[in-house]
Amino acid sequence: MGALHAGHETLIKTARAECDVVTVSVFVNPLQFGPSEDYSRYPRTWPQDLTICDRNGVELVFAPPVEEVYPTPQLITVDVGRLAEHLCGKFRPGHFRGVATVVLKLLNITRPARAYFGEKDIQQLVIIRRMVSDLNLPIRIVGVPTVRESDGLALSSRNKYLNAEERRAAPALYRALHDAASRIRAGEHDVSKIRAGALTLLAQSSLIRVEYIEVVDPDELQPLESIVGPVRIAAAVWIGTTRLIDNISAEPN
Amino acid sequence: MGALHAGHETLIKTARAECDVVTVSVFVNPLQFGPSEDYSRYPRTWPQDLTICDRNGVELVFAPPVEEVYPTPQLITVDVGRLAEHLCGKFRPGHFRGVATVVLKLLNITRPARAYFGEKDIQQLVIIRRMVSDLNLPIRIVGVPTVRESDGLALSSRNKYLNAEERRAAPALYRALHDAASRIRAGEHDVSKIRAGALTLLAQSSLIRVEYIEVVDPDELQPLESIVGPVRIAAAVWIGTTRLIDNISAEPN
Repeated sequence: MGALHAGHETLIKTARAECDVVTVSVFVNPLQFGPSEDYSRYPRTWPQDLTICDRNGVELVFAPPVEEVYPTPQLITVDVGRLAEHLCGKFRPGHFRGVATVVLKLLNITRPARAYFGEKDIQQLVIIRRMVSDLNLPIRIVGVPTVRESDGLALSSRNKYLNAEERRAAPALYRALHDAASRIRAGEHDVSKIRAGALTLLAQSSLIRVEYIEVVDPDELQPLESIVGPVRIAAAVWIGTTRLIDNISAEPN
Repeated sequence: MGALHAGHETLIKTARAECDVVTVSVFVNPLQFGPSEDYSRYPRTWPQDLTICDRNGVELVFAPPVEEVYPTPQLITVDVGRLAEHLCGKFRPGHFRGVATVVLKLLNITRPARAYFGEKDIQQLVIIRRMVSDLNLPIRIVGVPTVRESDGLALSSRNKYLNAEERRAAPALYRALHDAASRIRAGEHDVSKIRAGALTLLAQSSLIRVEYIEVVDPDELQPLESIVGPVRIAAAVWIGTTRLIDNISAEPN
């Protein structure tokens, strides 16, 4: 969706190292925003996006106008089923339908051999992996680890929305996930105790309102009650009017 | 779905005349049958299907086992929205989701430049056309006119289910559609009058139970009340335990 930052640049550099031709799509997709969400104020930084693509040797930037992607009403959409029942999908009805639909369109238009997505949007990554597999697309989806600020905050185009005080509070999200992962590595199996620990950390800032924090299986993102293998811990919080998400993998030792 | 007849053979011949390489998929798709429908008794005539493909110079017959098409639960499906709200979609919930999903999978596996579908299944054809357009697939969908018996009955694999008496009653379906099309060409604009005429014809046989007869716009298959341009007239009837469908195009003179 543009507003490229060092996280996106890592996607580009990874693709550049592995592929002959690199294409970047820049498209703020109206179909994935709810009516009360930030479609119109979502940051657009087109000249800077082009500079980042240029300096990384991107061959093609595909930045179509909305009317080219949706010339007529989009009657056909991708239903992602139970993959959207939890985490962000629960709080953003229709969001992952919109994401999956536009990604399928963009993949069909650009026809890549590989496509690179950040792990920061873990539910999106899992859904796109499953879409490619369930719909038999001859594409390899590559997940790229989240890029973080030195204090742990995951890079996101929406970090621009934070004022100075909110920015200082924001790293608590990563600290809470990190705390949960440490408890799991230390042998804690009970998800309710792991969540309680993370929520206590987040409650220390009065600026933070927790939307969800869940421990889920990494393939279908269904909530777990006790931990026996690899998991994803994912959370969304509001800081003022800004919604931030983050996630981390963990596994019992 | 196999059980190939002269209608399918016309699809093959049309493709053969227009394309360098012809592929036929034969797959009875469980995803498009409702729980009370005829998935298990649907006719399978594999040796005869191969003979028909052979004698028409088909290069590849793709007939995968069910486990190859659905190795894991199909979590990602194609939602066809209002295109399935009327006609058969109204009476077969989930049917066109199953059709669109498997066709998208088969198209992604076989990667044709063109794909041929019969006009007999008009709602399927319209949905697949729109899917290819809405999802930006680089494929041309070709609709091929319905092949009929000399008495007008549209060829269908399900005609095998009819006993002799039912078979004699079956052409009333086409006669009713033909009657409706004639009224439209003669200047009748009122859909309720056109439907009443067709229903009267169908009521002459006690073996026939009408599921629906509708006059719809040809692009989105929404029901019309009065006729101002080209339309499709489509119907489904039950004869005994067999469900037959047919449709015809019409336009005011």
